[in-house]
Amino acid sequence: MAQNIYDDPEFFRGYSGLPRSVEGLGAAAEWPWMQALLPPLPGARVVDLGCGFGYFCRWAVSHGAATVRGIDLSENMLGAAAAATDDERITYERQDLDDLSLPGAAYDLAYSSLAMHYLTALDPFLAAVAAALVPGGAFVCSVEHPLFTAPSSPAFVPDAGGHAIWPLNRYLDEGPRTTDWLAPGVVKQHRTIATYVNALLRAGLTPTAMHEWGPTPEQIAEQPDWVLERERPPFLLLSARR
Amino acid sequence: MAQNIYDDPEFFRGYSGLPRSVEGLGAAAEWPWMQALLPPLPGARVVDLGCGFGYFCRWAVSHGAATVRGIDLSENMLGAAAAATDDERITYERQDLDDLSLPGAAYDLAYSSLAMHYLTALDPFLAAVAAALVPGGAFVCSVEHPLFTAPSSPAFVPDAGGHAIWPLNRYLDEGPRTTDWLAPGVVKQHRTIATYVNALLRAGLTPTAMHEWGPTPEQIAEQPDWVLERERPPFLLLSARR
Repeated sequence: MAQNIYDDPEFFRGYSGLPRSVEGLGAAAEWPWMQALLPPLPGARVVDLGCGFGYFCRWAVSHGAATVRGIDLSENMLGAAAAATDDERITYERQDLDDLSLPGAAYDLAYSSLAMHYLTALDPFLAAVAAALVPGGAFVCSVEHPLFTAPSSPAFVPDAGGHAIWPLNRYLDEGPRTTDWLAPGVVKQHRTIATYVNALLRAGLTPTAMHEWGPTPEQIAEQPDWVLERERPPFLLLSARR
Repeated sequence: MAQNIYDDPEFFRGYSGLPRSVEGLGAAAEWPWMQALLPPLPGARVVDLGCGFGYFCRWAVSHGAATVRGIDLSENMLGAAAAATDDERITYERQDLDDLSLPGAAYDLAYSSLAMHYLTALDPFLAAVAAALVPGGAFVCSVEHPLFTAPSSPAFVPDAGGHAIWPLNRYLDEGPRTTDWLAPGVVKQHRTIATYVNALLRAGLTPTAMHEWGPTPEQIAEQPDWVLERERPPFLLLSARR
């Protein structure tokens, strides 16, 4: 079972204050690249795995999706998501993505933003995703980049010349990483890029694109403190087809 | 045009003394994983892009390949490769992989070990590879891992607690990196993992596996100084299918 950190009051309070929680997709730096990986939405049956506050669910119906099912473990987030819409095309359901159950061949798109690095096992999750997609259906996902999750001390430090470096270690040492992010003791699972790619392939999902997100010059002009993110990307985006 | 560093006398002398140059594939740490990515060899028509001393060419015919064409830019290496065999199934040819020309749909396997990070452009190379493969043919390759090529100062340093860290920076800043390795001024091209994957896809090659090589406990027992390689993998291996 994945850690339900989003229902920890301290974490939820902190997470609720993040720009992406307050302002939605437009405040998520990587969103334009996630959007670019999406198949056409009109008429699509969509499932959002780790739907959080439901911003993507609402965006998907506003862009033509026929139905969107949002799934999350957090009662806090599902409550807020449900309160934010009365659109009948959107339904929400509480499930642990580590024990995911979905109808077979029911969706044209499975979407998962920044959730998979909380899962204790990828293979059963991706098997459920693959089985839930129609043939030709798309899976579009993002995770914290393995370069972000790997180190013992995930914070930039100055090198001998005073330039910021990311103190990479433990890249091949997969498994849990406990960090203090919004609350103490947040557990994420570090996996390598190869592990994500090979897990997709094992599930019968063929990779169609990869993006290692870092800010553009325009984004850095607007958010100067993002400049370091180009030294080591914080997000890994993948799309695949059943 | 790729830098022909292998015909630099100082570099060639240094490279010729490496275990993998003296002892062949068995001394290449990542070879068992490259081998695992290969399709069945019996009867296969093979092209080796960046064949060096020809160890893989000779191994391939000894494992049943019908023909193997070895291509390299280095006259030094092609000379040594040609002198090491009189097997008629093996032919060698001098070409710059940055301007590669191959017959269409002529090969069942294209193989390239630790050569692509010297190329100034991936797309024309991979287009030539894809066109040279029969439908269903395999491309198996390795490159220096992007984590290895990225940093301004690619060497482990101690952190505040004395533990070795890899001083990662410039990961998203693709382009040439000049290092002193065996000789001064060796130019390699840094590319991200996503760039390699997306270039394969653009060429019509579907990824089938990825491996980020680091030493096993058994390899570390034999070569204790390899232990740091697990902190950041030195080699990236990929296979794809036309």
